[in-house]
Amino acid sequence: MTQHSPVWQKIDAHIEQNLDYWIEQLGRLCAQPSVSAQNYGIQETAVLVAAMLREQGFHAEIMPSDGYPVVYGESAGAADDAPTLLFYLHYDVQPPEPLELWESPPFELTRRGDNFYARGVSDDKGHIICRLAALAAVREALGDLPVNVKFVIEGEEEVGSPNMPAFVEKHQEKLAADACIWEFGGVDHEGAPEQVLGMRGICYVELSVQTAKIDAHSGLGGSIFPNAAWRLVWALNTLKDENERILIPGFYDDVLPPSDRDRELLAKLPDDSAKVQQIFGLDGFLHGLTGGVELRETAVFQPTCTICGLTSGYQGEGAKTVLPAKARAKVDFRLVPDQRPDDIVAKLRAHLDAQGFADVAVKLLGGGRPAKVDPDDPFVQLVNETAVTVYGKEPIIAPLIGGSGPNYPFIHTLGLPLVAAGIGYPGGQAHAPNENIRLDDFIKGIQHTARIIERYGRQ
Amino acid sequence: MTQHSPVWQKIDAHIEQNLDYWIEQLGRLCAQPSVSAQNYGIQETAVLVAAMLREQGFHAEIMPSDGYPVVYGESAGAADDAPTLLFYLHYDVQPPEPLELWESPPFELTRRGDNFYARGVSDDKGHIICRLAALAAVREALGDLPVNVKFVIEGEEEVGSPNMPAFVEKHQEKLAADACIWEFGGVDHEGAPEQVLGMRGICYVELSVQTAKIDAHSGLGGSIFPNAAWRLVWALNTLKDENERILIPGFYDDVLPPSDRDRELLAKLPDDSAKVQQIFGLDGFLHGLTGGVELRETAVFQPTCTICGLTSGYQGEGAKTVLPAKARAKVDFRLVPDQRPDDIVAKLRAHLDAQGFADVAVKLLGGGRPAKVDPDDPFVQLVNETAVTVYGKEPIIAPLIGGSGPNYPFIHTLGLPLVAAGIGYPGGQAHAPNENIRLDDFIKGIQHTARIIERYGRQ
Repeated sequence: MTQHSPVWQKIDAHIEQNLDYWIEQLGRLCAQPSVSAQNYGIQETAVLVAAMLREQGFHAEIMPSDGYPVVYGESAGAADDAPTLLFYLHYDVQPPEPLELWESPPFELTRRGDNFYARGVSDDKGHIICRLAALAAVREALGDLPVNVKFVIEGEEEVGSPNMPAFVEKHQEKLAADACIWEFGGVDHEGAPEQVLGMRGICYVELSVQTAKIDAHSGLGGSIFPNAAWRLVWALNTLKDENERILIPGFYDDVLPPSDRDRELLAKLPDDSAKVQQIFGLDGFLHGLTGGVELRETAVFQPTCTICGLTSGYQGEGAKTVLPAKARAKVDFRLVPDQRPDDIVAKLRAHLDAQGFADVAVKLLGGGRPAKVDPDDPFVQLVNETAVTVYGKEPIIAPLIGGSGPNYPFIHTLGLPLVAAGIGYPGGQAHAPNENIRLDDFIKGIQHTARIIERYGRQ
Repeated sequence: MTQHSPVWQKIDAHIEQNLDYWIEQLGRLCAQPSVSAQNYGIQETAVLVAAMLREQGFHAEIMPSDGYPVVYGESAGAADDAPTLLFYLHYDVQPPEPLELWESPPFELTRRGDNFYARGVSDDKGHIICRLAALAAVREALGDLPVNVKFVIEGEEEVGSPNMPAFVEKHQEKLAADACIWEFGGVDHEGAPEQVLGMRGICYVELSVQTAKIDAHSGLGGSIFPNAAWRLVWALNTLKDENERILIPGFYDDVLPPSDRDRELLAKLPDDSAKVQQIFGLDGFLHGLTGGVELRETAVFQPTCTICGLTSGYQGEGAKTVLPAKARAKVDFRLVPDQRPDDIVAKLRAHLDAQGFADVAVKLLGGGRPAKVDPDDPFVQLVNETAVTVYGKEPIIAPLIGGSGPNYPFIHTLGLPLVAAGIGYPGGQAHAPNENIRLDDFIKGIQHTARIIERYGRQ
């Protein structure tokens, strides 16, 4: 079936006819804040998303988890022998701060030219709308859905999906499916569709230390009081050296090198290093890397120890002579196969104790295991082939990306092949001010999702 | 002359008769906000203070400095061969925030029991009134002042007196005097008068580093982007080791150990270590010190490198997976004789460069040299002897305290012995909400100041 097959033409026509409606729905969803890090609007958004599923004819229920609720949805009506496609999505968003850098209100979908701006417009509310729009178009074109559909739409992805593994484990019969479409996807700088087959794991911790009940005057205590900020700096310094070597004993024990097939895929990826360097205004990359497959391999197949935040004492303008009683750091370890977050936290705790930092508390804020899918799985092939029909280009296939997500339980607990397909692009500013999508990517993402559904139904 | 000499009785009677008037004047001065950190009411307060000096028969002028104006005052009429006493004071106050913790409005003098509450009632407006009341009482009792008097009342003490050294240097002929009474003084927990003979210097810097134009997603950049927070942690770690040894080459070069006389005075100081430990909730002091002269010596005769603040990346609750482009630390070096802030900044810069941290910027936010007075100076003796007649106790004499102030130009540029005498007490909450003085300390501080003036005039 080519790009111009009658069914796909019919599907595309439905997408085009209903575009204004879906942009309206996108605005409706983006207008509802849902900042998981701040527990802001979470319940309201779960209710709204369930309502939106029901409006499209799906059963929907708000299921409790050990954290924020999961919106679960499913279709009724496909033949029993039809395959089941599971859509993993999330309704929570990153905090909008710093607000002063937004050119329009973060929780108000705003069109400027052919771009739409709002917190979550890409990550991940735009993808929720993309899936609903694609399903609606396929249903209208075929009269009914050719596959069974399930939705798992969680509210904690932006804080590391701490409860998704247990939720999937607990409900694995209910969530049983044949393939999974992940919450993201889109095009690269050149407009080629991107396929993502694996994600690093994460172990996100808060390190905190308290050395006194109250802050002291630095003139009084500087020579004789313990200082929480110094304790934190010294403790952090033991975690990683200036050559980026992580110093926690046993940290690298379970690291698997990339396979030959992974290296083959990495070699085919475009070199966007110059563009990345320019966007972030970097003087250079770490380890003296300047691009090429070596940079790409390091970027994703090496685990990390990133300080995400530091806070202690006086942080305003000018001088305040204070000796801080408390200090805190956020530290993000990205894990590669087969590292496990529980193991890393245990090794971190043992290391701090051994280094004399028993006073530095470690709190696990989020953890998830790394996981990747076989690049040669038939469903991966199907998604890549349909991508060509929409984008007119061969997909760029990443065997592993640097980011994390709860793909492990879907790949390993439910046993699903799992693919990316969606509406994003490199300038989308996900997690940053002025998050945005382009109209053309939005349309293509819906078309691609619809073709996957339609073709998977004919398998 | 004893406490009951006829002249001092006459002086004390004048102080008692005019007490209500001076409390009224204190209320008038406290009602005028003068927050230097916020540039709030500074000019108005300078005008008010000059007016109050003139009302007491002094010449007064508002002199420009490179920052906020200095109120300069002087007496006319004493014999040419009379000694000149210089009063250093300041009309600015700390910010009143947090306002919700005040039990009465910060800029409204409020009496509860025998305590008076207001921002600046002790630090330093109460001392301005104390000096004026003492001078008025002496003048009334003797018919004229027995000394020449000069006032230097600055408006930037609470932000580190950045312009006082240059101001004193520029106007050293005009400010020429024979002795100086400092802006503070008072009693300890036991009601004994406290004498302060020296203060540490300060070199307050901001260290900042920027590694990119914008923050990045930690999953994207963690393995290959430089991280500002890590750069800052590593740079800070090179400044001081876990044994509190400052590692900047040459940092200790100019440190003078305390003299035998200093040690003798330190040994006589009361041991308030248990009280301090309890107030701040400390598990213990650094270096395993538990009190005694060794703790007191370390507390003031050792220079410091205190992290006063750390800021980078995400600092809210929960997790945000960001790789920070910027990081900043406030660092306060307390200096002991004969260290110099300009020298320390230069050594810090050279050290960071040598350690590979040329990317860490250093900004000097405030500096002042350490300085101390000879404990056996005759003026110090006079002040201590008159203290006994007022307080009925031997003064507690600190050869050096941990805090800093602009005493260096007065001691070294003008060549003056410099002493503390005043109205404060340990519960005065200077710099905190509910700043207050006790009526009895206020009266005694005026009496003591008056006796110093009267006796110095008979030298």
